[in-house]
Amino acid sequence: MQYHETWNIIKCHFFLESAKEKYQLTKGLIGMRTITIKSLYRQTKEFVDKEITVAGWVRTIRDSKAFGFIEVNDGTFFKNLQVVFEEQNISNFKEITKIPVGTAIIVQGTLVETPNAKQPFELKASKIEIEGMSTSDYPLQKKRHTFEYLRTIAHLRPRTNTFSAVFRVRSLAAYAIHKFFQERGFVYVHTPIITGSDAEGAGQMFRVTTLDMDNLPKNKDGSINYSEDFFGKSTNLTVSGQLEGETYCMAFRNIYTFGPTFRAENSNTARHAAEFWMVEPEIAFADLKDDMELAEDMLKYIINYCMENAPEEMEFFNNFIDKTLFDRLNNIVNSEFGHITYTEAIELLKKADEKFEYPVEWGLDLQTEHERYITEKIFKKPVFVTDYPKDIKAFYMRLNDDNKTVAAMDLLVPGVGELIGGSQREERLDYLEKRMEELSLKKEDYWWYLDLRKYGGTKHAGFGLGFERAIMYITGMTNIRDVIPFPRTVNNADF
Amino acid sequence: MQYHETWNIIKCHFFLESAKEKYQLTKGLIGMRTITIKSLYRQTKEFVDKEITVAGWVRTIRDSKAFGFIEVNDGTFFKNLQVVFEEQNISNFKEITKIPVGTAIIVQGTLVETPNAKQPFELKASKIEIEGMSTSDYPLQKKRHTFEYLRTIAHLRPRTNTFSAVFRVRSLAAYAIHKFFQERGFVYVHTPIITGSDAEGAGQMFRVTTLDMDNLPKNKDGSINYSEDFFGKSTNLTVSGQLEGETYCMAFRNIYTFGPTFRAENSNTARHAAEFWMVEPEIAFADLKDDMELAEDMLKYIINYCMENAPEEMEFFNNFIDKTLFDRLNNIVNSEFGHITYTEAIELLKKADEKFEYPVEWGLDLQTEHERYITEKIFKKPVFVTDYPKDIKAFYMRLNDDNKTVAAMDLLVPGVGELIGGSQREERLDYLEKRMEELSLKKEDYWWYLDLRKYGGTKHAGFGLGFERAIMYITGMTNIRDVIPFPRTVNNADF
Repeated sequence: MQYHETWNIIKCHFFLESAKEKYQLTKGLIGMRTITIKSLYRQTKEFVDKEITVAGWVRTIRDSKAFGFIEVNDGTFFKNLQVVFEEQNISNFKEITKIPVGTAIIVQGTLVETPNAKQPFELKASKIEIEGMSTSDYPLQKKRHTFEYLRTIAHLRPRTNTFSAVFRVRSLAAYAIHKFFQERGFVYVHTPIITGSDAEGAGQMFRVTTLDMDNLPKNKDGSINYSEDFFGKSTNLTVSGQLEGETYCMAFRNIYTFGPTFRAENSNTARHAAEFWMVEPEIAFADLKDDMELAEDMLKYIINYCMENAPEEMEFFNNFIDKTLFDRLNNIVNSEFGHITYTEAIELLKKADEKFEYPVEWGLDLQTEHERYITEKIFKKPVFVTDYPKDIKAFYMRLNDDNKTVAAMDLLVPGVGELIGGSQREERLDYLEKRMEELSLKKEDYWWYLDLRKYGGTKHAGFGLGFERAIMYITGMTNIRDVIPFPRTVNNADF
Repeated sequence: MQYHETWNIIKCHFFLESAKEKYQLTKGLIGMRTITIKSLYRQTKEFVDKEITVAGWVRTIRDSKAFGFIEVNDGTFFKNLQVVFEEQNISNFKEITKIPVGTAIIVQGTLVETPNAKQPFELKASKIEIEGMSTSDYPLQKKRHTFEYLRTIAHLRPRTNTFSAVFRVRSLAAYAIHKFFQERGFVYVHTPIITGSDAEGAGQMFRVTTLDMDNLPKNKDGSINYSEDFFGKSTNLTVSGQLEGETYCMAFRNIYTFGPTFRAENSNTARHAAEFWMVEPEIAFADLKDDMELAEDMLKYIINYCMENAPEEMEFFNNFIDKTLFDRLNNIVNSEFGHITYTEAIELLKKADEKFEYPVEWGLDLQTEHERYITEKIFKKPVFVTDYPKDIKAFYMRLNDDNKTVAAMDLLVPGVGELIGGSQREERLDYLEKRMEELSLKKEDYWWYLDLRKYGGTKHAGFGLGFERAIMYITGMTNIRDVIPFPRTVNNADF
């Protein structure tokens, strides 16, 4: 075993003496001397019938006359450890029977297999120390709480089953994204958060300023003098790292960004947050088909990684959050994604035996109801819709030979609709400049972006994945507020 | 070999037919059909004497009468590929001799070993296509450019040796951080960027607002009515995710954050940026010693990872940026870090045969000159200074039994000074509240932070690593502007 794999194990009591020299464990490592509950579940055989120490928080406690049971969770694993404590074995039995839920304890004892019980093993306590008391008004008592209520105690909700599962899977999915791209040699780029340019020309932006709001500096004409602001000009929070990402793509060939992005949209829905994380790969010497293959591979990789590394959490979601989850995810992982052009999709939607709320007409954008019809009813699997009318897409997308559509793609998935949006970028300087003129975008604002087309520009493509949308999809959670640790939405920036 | 390892290989020409069915390569993958230059260097034997296709950018080009040489870089590897092209073999010989530096080309040819040459192999071209022309005024001509000048073309500088090395290492170091913590079961937490609370009570912050600056809503008393702002209150960009990170630490035991943080300090130095990334782990059931061990392990891990995964880049830094680099890094990796208390350090500094600019007195903070003396002259290796006077440290640090110092630690490293700062957190509610009162911090602003001490609070600790400082340390680069893709500093938010 390698060092990193044994991190949790070599830190434990009974390995301590032999490992002391090698790992310098002489320093008195409180945290490290305990066995994680994850280790107990994953390497049970190594601990059975051994004296071990576990630290964690009391999830439930019940006692009868001379003995009791505590369900302990230490945060390293979805499941709890059952601790059995008996009056004859521990000195502070009475005190322990009275500790409230949420209390932090450190338990010494022997791990015993329990082949006939619900749980595979339990810890027979020989000593229980109270590390930190809780109180009887601890908000997470055993009864069920609504997600709405739990949002008001976002600092405590990761201690519940649902949110411990959500946020562990969020962590694993984030890592899966890095792993996927790094294994393929992509360079991770930190594009700027504070920006002087509006990348997509879309979406309301948040202003970033250090000006004294009570005493704003003014120009002679009465307008605000932003040259006195921190950056010497007016700045905002980024809505996308794509344009900056493209500059690095033209140097490293394959790059990705993964960072926070912001939209100041006043939309109070279950799918919109003002602050969310986005993944934006960009690949050079590549076209739209390469882009779609990359998106498909990435999505399958993330899902597989979560299924493999959080089986308990995923089963919980499938049992208690969304009973169709495994079917949906297996359908993604095992199917070859479909492909259809926007124009073909419009034709099929027009012929569809379905009443849509929004009109279906070539030139209009697809609404969620249309997207879901395409992916759920027509294809019954994920599908890429490509080649949208140029007028409903961004200026940087590559014009197709028909002069009407651009090499864009949206990935639609059953149950949600759009999950990924991407395009081949317009690498031809003259085409790009013409499009910018049509849209009244100033060339001087994009000088560096245009430079990419002057100095060895190549075919290239990329896409954006809204990370929270992906987490909602993977967990079955239906409100974006429940997959962000401390969500920022209209009128809410608590914690 | 696993799928991910062969990504670059299976996509290539001569594997294409057999792999077609399995990997669905029928879609016409421009980008994927080319071999990366990294593959040529790392798996040379697989490609020697084979006909392959490579895509990349011209770094240099020279020709004599009937043949020429092109150094091509495709961004996947630090080194270039030498392409030999001969008039008798390629149809557009004249055209190719005239292409400017920076042009993107796609080259077909045979890879030939060159045992007697500087480079291990070269590509004998049979076909050269121009994918994207550059111009004769391409800013990156072969002459040396100053770092200052290259900052003005931050969109092109990753195409130079120095910055391709810096930003590949930055990417690898970021991944190493995730890998280190994920392998140890830490949960990655995205703490909020926009915040209503000032985490450390320190540092000027950037305001985030959607208020109409030309028409600010006012209260009756003339003050600005922030209840009309996007979040219904005044908000800022975060300076640290620590306090929110602690809430997740009390649920998952071991967590880390890795995200952008902001300081609106008007300091125009080589070591300060307004926007930078920070890594902040937090561990429960752990004390200051555990914290220091974690920091030491992490730092060694990151350095080892970069040395192993970017040997060419690291050698470049050692040869051209900082000739002491390998000595410095080896010293870190191979030494057991030293430990000294602040009080002991002050005594040694007072006895030191050295003139300091700033005074040395118990109760005053250590300046960089003091820190460097301790780590470079006294210890000659990295050293943790611990147990600082409470009055020069943050409110949340755990009070020691002497009632004068807190369980804080700073990691000092030769050549730089402070690289990491951390502490054991005050888990005792009464101590924490008393300290907050002394510092006039309002309890109601920290209600959720105090809750952690009411409901099963445990000993816990954490630290912060300024990611850019670490990159400067690992690469030898001396200006923070040169390790951030698009740096944000006073009066600069270009790109």
